[in-house]
Amino acid sequence: MKLQNDLFLRAITGEVVERPPVWLMRQAGRTLPNYRKIRASVPDFKTLVESPELIVEATVEPVEVLGVDAAIIFSDILVIPEAMGLPYELLEKRGPRFPRTIKTQADVRGLRTGVDAAAQLAHTYESVRLTKQRLQGRVPLIGFAGAPWTIMAYMVEGSGSKTFASAKEMLFKSPELAHQLLDKITQATIAYLKEKIIAGVDVIQLFDSWAGILSPHQYHQFAMPYLKEICDHIQEVPVTVFSKGAWFALKEIGALNCQAIGLDWNTTPQFARAQLGNEKVLQGNLDPCQLFDTLDNIEKATLSMLKEFGTKHIANLGHGVYPETPVEAIHCFVDTVKRFRY
Amino acid sequence: MKLQNDLFLRAITGEVVERPPVWLMRQAGRTLPNYRKIRASVPDFKTLVESPELIVEATVEPVEVLGVDAAIIFSDILVIPEAMGLPYELLEKRGPRFPRTIKTQADVRGLRTGVDAAAQLAHTYESVRLTKQRLQGRVPLIGFAGAPWTIMAYMVEGSGSKTFASAKEMLFKSPELAHQLLDKITQATIAYLKEKIIAGVDVIQLFDSWAGILSPHQYHQFAMPYLKEICDHIQEVPVTVFSKGAWFALKEIGALNCQAIGLDWNTTPQFARAQLGNEKVLQGNLDPCQLFDTLDNIEKATLSMLKEFGTKHIANLGHGVYPETPVEAIHCFVDTVKRFRY
Repeated sequence: MKLQNDLFLRAITGEVVERPPVWLMRQAGRTLPNYRKIRASVPDFKTLVESPELIVEATVEPVEVLGVDAAIIFSDILVIPEAMGLPYELLEKRGPRFPRTIKTQADVRGLRTGVDAAAQLAHTYESVRLTKQRLQGRVPLIGFAGAPWTIMAYMVEGSGSKTFASAKEMLFKSPELAHQLLDKITQATIAYLKEKIIAGVDVIQLFDSWAGILSPHQYHQFAMPYLKEICDHIQEVPVTVFSKGAWFALKEIGALNCQAIGLDWNTTPQFARAQLGNEKVLQGNLDPCQLFDTLDNIEKATLSMLKEFGTKHIANLGHGVYPETPVEAIHCFVDTVKRFRY
Repeated sequence: MKLQNDLFLRAITGEVVERPPVWLMRQAGRTLPNYRKIRASVPDFKTLVESPELIVEATVEPVEVLGVDAAIIFSDILVIPEAMGLPYELLEKRGPRFPRTIKTQADVRGLRTGVDAAAQLAHTYESVRLTKQRLQGRVPLIGFAGAPWTIMAYMVEGSGSKTFASAKEMLFKSPELAHQLLDKITQATIAYLKEKIIAGVDVIQLFDSWAGILSPHQYHQFAMPYLKEICDHIQEVPVTVFSKGAWFALKEIGALNCQAIGLDWNTTPQFARAQLGNEKVLQGNLDPCQLFDTLDNIEKATLSMLKEFGTKHIANLGHGVYPETPVEAIHCFVDTVKRFRY
């Protein structure tokens, strides 16, 4: 089906466009009124992530309410560990927890990978298909996955953490075991993304949420090779890589076989361009806290961001929308971008 | 009293020395056996911070057990808000909590500052005097304070936070109020540090622990002017500024009237030198997680760090020692530095 609004796809492939497309990480979430109803209709977040009809509702709502230029399929990066055989719980306000974690070679050996892992996630592909039908070509649909290091961090640590000391301990003390685990995650992720593409997603985004806790040396050793492998294997659609906090690796990230690079709000477009050159499209990077500001200030800050980035830019925040963000602030951000012209 | 080991003072003032001095952030803490006894002898952490005799024990133990080249007075950055009139609690494993927080102009107006605030902390100056006596000139004594932005972040947010969204909201929405608060913190901090210097500390370190959550623009506006004011007013002893995560501000930090700059483990000495030039002494930056590695690997990583930094370096970790670090690992780190020669 031909897209009615293909601005996002034109921009991410480097075409000259009239204005930057705009969407927000975590745009389908607690800030929107209908989402709260959807969330209240199920006992927990995981039930929501496994219910295709509800996923369609949550995914399409920001397109209809906010008028963003792309939808992103409502899901969770931790469906991959679960598909590999490591189930998790999501505790309200406390985040994810894995009752079992990965410690030994036997633990890694016991994990599913590749198409066997990907086959566990039929409900996600089904929700992609249903969402595409429901979108009726209005905007493109983004699919996402966690980057292998971030997924490994959760599988070894067992929960979120300020330091991810156990996961990093494995990198230091058992680098071969870490590489085996990272490789299995990578193969599962590639198979999963390929199924999502077959089901209809138009763009892939990889989230390396815990990039910033590794040293440049460790990031080079344990994160980059697997990001590269995924990018090299996903050639069907454009790919965005967002490694939060990995400013020190931007030069290497710029050499990946991908179309766009996400930036957090610490990283200026000037710094990024100096590291990356002018080829890649940049995505980001308004501080999500800025959306707690007055509407006047949000408009000014958004315009100033748009001017600093210039062309080859996809407007977004530098991280996911915070849950308590007023919906008028999000409207102001989106509308400011949509009124802007290069 | 003449120092027996003045390596740290010679290094921080830029002298050519035979090897880098070494100490560890949070060296007096849970990793050491006697500290655990001291901690168990009081009902809570705050009682410890207010007991000069126990502070002496905790401060001197790492010098005697680990053989580090500097002591750092055992204290807490949050004594400043309390001295200004905003008391806090420290909950075991949950961190600090302020029952009252700063929200309005009246809240800021009600705070003590300058010498009035500093006068509340007589027990700290007493513990500096007692520690100096007990050290008998073996090594220099470091005194520290939180940087104004970090202190403000706690005073407004009321606790630790992943995002410090309330504190940042004040920067966005009420910049004048934020500047008034930052100024009061700054004046209290200067008076406090001057008293500590009179009591005998040989070096000052400023910790900007939450630097990394601000954008470059906000850091420039709300953090740098106050760091500058403190550095300009503390000329009696050398000053180290450690702004964790503020890689984007290193050029500006390098222009401060201070002798040394702390680096976290994300920041290579090559990057820092490119930003800062060669004048300042650099301090850091082994990943504290590296101390969970094997002793062989710790030695290799420490040596490789020492070579990368070259001269004008004070060996340290890139953050505080993690509580569960094995004491043999800390010994290995310290001893490796002490055997090294340029």
